[in-house]
Amino acid sequence: MAHLLSTSCPLDIASSSKTYYKPSNPGLISFSASLSFPISHLSLKRLSVHGKMSQRCCSIYATAVSTSQEAKTEPGSGSYGSSSEASTPKKVMVIGGDGYCGWATSLHLSNKNYEVAIVDNLVRRLFDHQLGLDSLTPISSIHNRIRRWESLTGKDIQLYIGDICDFEFLSEAFKSFKPDAVVHFGEQRSAPYSMIDRSRAVFTQQNNVIGTLNVLFAIKEFKEDCHLVKLGTMGEYGTPNIDIEEGYITITHNGRTDTLPYPKQASSFYHLSKVHDSHNIAFTCKAWGIRATDLNQGVVYGLRTDETAMHEELCNRLDYDAVFGTALNRFCVQAAVDHPLTVYGKGGQTRGYLDIRDTVQCVELAIANPAQQGEFRVFNQFTEQFSVNQLATLVTKAGEKLGLQVQTISVPNPRVEAEEHYYNAKHTKLVELGLKPHLLSDSLLDSLLNFAVQYKDRVDTKQIMPSVSWRKIGVRPKTVSA
Amino acid sequence: MAHLLSTSCPLDIASSSKTYYKPSNPGLISFSASLSFPISHLSLKRLSVHGKMSQRCCSIYATAVSTSQEAKTEPGSGSYGSSSEASTPKKVMVIGGDGYCGWATSLHLSNKNYEVAIVDNLVRRLFDHQLGLDSLTPISSIHNRIRRWESLTGKDIQLYIGDICDFEFLSEAFKSFKPDAVVHFGEQRSAPYSMIDRSRAVFTQQNNVIGTLNVLFAIKEFKEDCHLVKLGTMGEYGTPNIDIEEGYITITHNGRTDTLPYPKQASSFYHLSKVHDSHNIAFTCKAWGIRATDLNQGVVYGLRTDETAMHEELCNRLDYDAVFGTALNRFCVQAAVDHPLTVYGKGGQTRGYLDIRDTVQCVELAIANPAQQGEFRVFNQFTEQFSVNQLATLVTKAGEKLGLQVQTISVPNPRVEAEEHYYNAKHTKLVELGLKPHLLSDSLLDSLLNFAVQYKDRVDTKQIMPSVSWRKIGVRPKTVSA
Repeated sequence: MAHLLSTSCPLDIASSSKTYYKPSNPGLISFSASLSFPISHLSLKRLSVHGKMSQRCCSIYATAVSTSQEAKTEPGSGSYGSSSEASTPKKVMVIGGDGYCGWATSLHLSNKNYEVAIVDNLVRRLFDHQLGLDSLTPISSIHNRIRRWESLTGKDIQLYIGDICDFEFLSEAFKSFKPDAVVHFGEQRSAPYSMIDRSRAVFTQQNNVIGTLNVLFAIKEFKEDCHLVKLGTMGEYGTPNIDIEEGYITITHNGRTDTLPYPKQASSFYHLSKVHDSHNIAFTCKAWGIRATDLNQGVVYGLRTDETAMHEELCNRLDYDAVFGTALNRFCVQAAVDHPLTVYGKGGQTRGYLDIRDTVQCVELAIANPAQQGEFRVFNQFTEQFSVNQLATLVTKAGEKLGLQVQTISVPNPRVEAEEHYYNAKHTKLVELGLKPHLLSDSLLDSLLNFAVQYKDRVDTKQIMPSVSWRKIGVRPKTVSA
Repeated sequence: MAHLLSTSCPLDIASSSKTYYKPSNPGLISFSASLSFPISHLSLKRLSVHGKMSQRCCSIYATAVSTSQEAKTEPGSGSYGSSSEASTPKKVMVIGGDGYCGWATSLHLSNKNYEVAIVDNLVRRLFDHQLGLDSLTPISSIHNRIRRWESLTGKDIQLYIGDICDFEFLSEAFKSFKPDAVVHFGEQRSAPYSMIDRSRAVFTQQNNVIGTLNVLFAIKEFKEDCHLVKLGTMGEYGTPNIDIEEGYITITHNGRTDTLPYPKQASSFYHLSKVHDSHNIAFTCKAWGIRATDLNQGVVYGLRTDETAMHEELCNRLDYDAVFGTALNRFCVQAAVDHPLTVYGKGGQTRGYLDIRDTVQCVELAIANPAQQGEFRVFNQFTEQFSVNQLATLVTKAGEKLGLQVQTISVPNPRVEAEEHYYNAKHTKLVELGLKPHLLSDSLLDSLLNFAVQYKDRVDTKQIMPSVSWRKIGVRPKTVSA
């Protein structure tokens, strides 16, 4: 520790650095009650710390205000007035801004001249290390990503490294950045991960539910007009035998009528954590006047956005493994490496899908058109519905155009879910706000498939087959062999 | 520690004691991630420990099997065959068995010849210490309660002291006791407590949600035919403008029909924790085949049950304070000490109520008629609906019969809730199973009021007025002055 700090992390409070962190134990960055990783895994090159050195360890505190921001907000500068007076939100905190959706969104918002701060504990990268997984695409460190973005565009993204379950850290980030909107991607986001073993099930719910509670308290305490844009999931609704509405349904029952929250039937501890979040947020909107938008997102596919395509160091991650990979992305990688497409069970499972270019567009639309004070607004964020079998057929056809011979197999379904069911989910509210969907066309499939072919030497085919069973989850911690 | 153990806690593994505990840190009994209390607060007189003594501390492990149970289950004794073979569940674990509903239920089930084990970390008693509160009635320690019950009836109640959020402890209790049914009262159960400050909100959701997850995993792993009887709350439904059904509602929408979970609109972090539990349990019933009954209980009133009335050391607790006291019990105490009845706001808030004698009856009915494997069954557990104003009128009239002059005042509502609303909740399923309700009559009010008068010298009138505001909850830890 002492060595690391003395060589690469000068205690220069007045430097123009933009990274903050606060370990709860000296030498460790805490990101949950049960997990931790050593500081030395992080790049500390641009780190600004207020520190005390002792013989054996170094206590490091979060800085309350970035030095660059201090300069901008000094009396008379006027460039950052009270955000509540502004008609359009300008300052957006992206929690989980180093992840798949979060990174693309952060760059998109920065490109659109929002002032962006990324809050992330980088635990998604740790999951890869622990499970022996890796992104199809090589990705740079968050520090290099942000440096590259600044060097290409001149735009500054602030970085707060820490765990939102640590309220002291989150408070400092809020008080320092004073966001007009918070986009909250900062949750464990894999259903299979939440079904690996008891400790990961508990971690997922604790991390997601408590993290979101802390965000709600931070908004109430420090920035009560801040708009919360929360990533939910279409999986909260399950697969009811009636049409899925956007968050609410009007019910006439025994001669009386009311509009109530749409019933939830989630089917993994991860999906359930999002249901819990939705209920908690709805309550705080009513009780405290929080303004919130719950984006019940479908399955995201695709790699490139305008911004991530600008430089290889800005490249987004792409997951194809059985834990973090989602159906369409995984199919394209399977096609590229001549692995049969793995349809779980009958393949009639139907879900909403969207291009990652639409994810970033939807989030921007939600921010630009904020919920009212006290409003809990729910948008279903997807553009098209497909069954798994339909996706397999589309990938097979697109593969043929690239000269790939694509086969499909059915594997025993590791999940507990209906494999043939009615599915009709509404998704008009974001279109009404101006969403211009990128639909899943052959050209897009070509493009996704081309990336898969480009990086196919990086594919670890051992990671493709389902490894997590909904029914066999047990209490013993699961470890991964080399 | 060493002194305490050597004087009052001999390391006698072969003794006939029935208390188990496993502190996660030597010298501390852990009951949550953030709270702990010293072992020396507990009576250790009848404690059986498997311990290692060192110079500075003592590691104590949960015993896997009670010595009395070992004798009973030794090969050939035949008195405790495989419970899954038995037609009627016999062994009931009552989590939270030292609390208001839990204690009355434990004694009732023991009296009905169920073999009962209480699992409790006694944290409810700690809340009183921390907040400067006390039960209206003097209550004995759990150890004395159980000893007294055994001396009066010859019936043995086993005791496992520990935190169900500690899965290692819960595992040992499950493997040792092998319950046919688990009655789960073991949650932080006060809405105002959950709204005191951020840390108590977080504690409530973490403690309740993770504790219940652990119970579900324990059932799956160790006793998959065990019937979970979980205490929910009528507050999960909120106050919709349509009739409240028992757990599910059949909805016809755009020409299609499905029966879905009844929409939830909870209005405190406590009530929300119960909503989260319900969703988690429903999922495990579907995915793992857990059998579960969710008892959405109304507001419980009353002190005596047949069993708790048998001896003063069996007396139940009665809470009248603004944090743990509920409407009717609190009104009776207010009437007894000549304090105006405190109606929050307009007083039109209508809820379901039940006598504690019906609580114990309902739980017994649920156990005796278990849910099917994979079934998530929901019963609304109350007998009558009243508005707060109606309760105030009833207490006023009953008070007059005892010569009490009862006044009522409206105080600003500390909660965020509708004060005038439609309310019609179904509650027929438990009646169909045989529930014979004790209705709120003048005689019962006399009886409750008589107790209040009997113990009125113990009333701390400072604890009566609302002290927790739904809107003013903040992030700073609230402390209580002397």
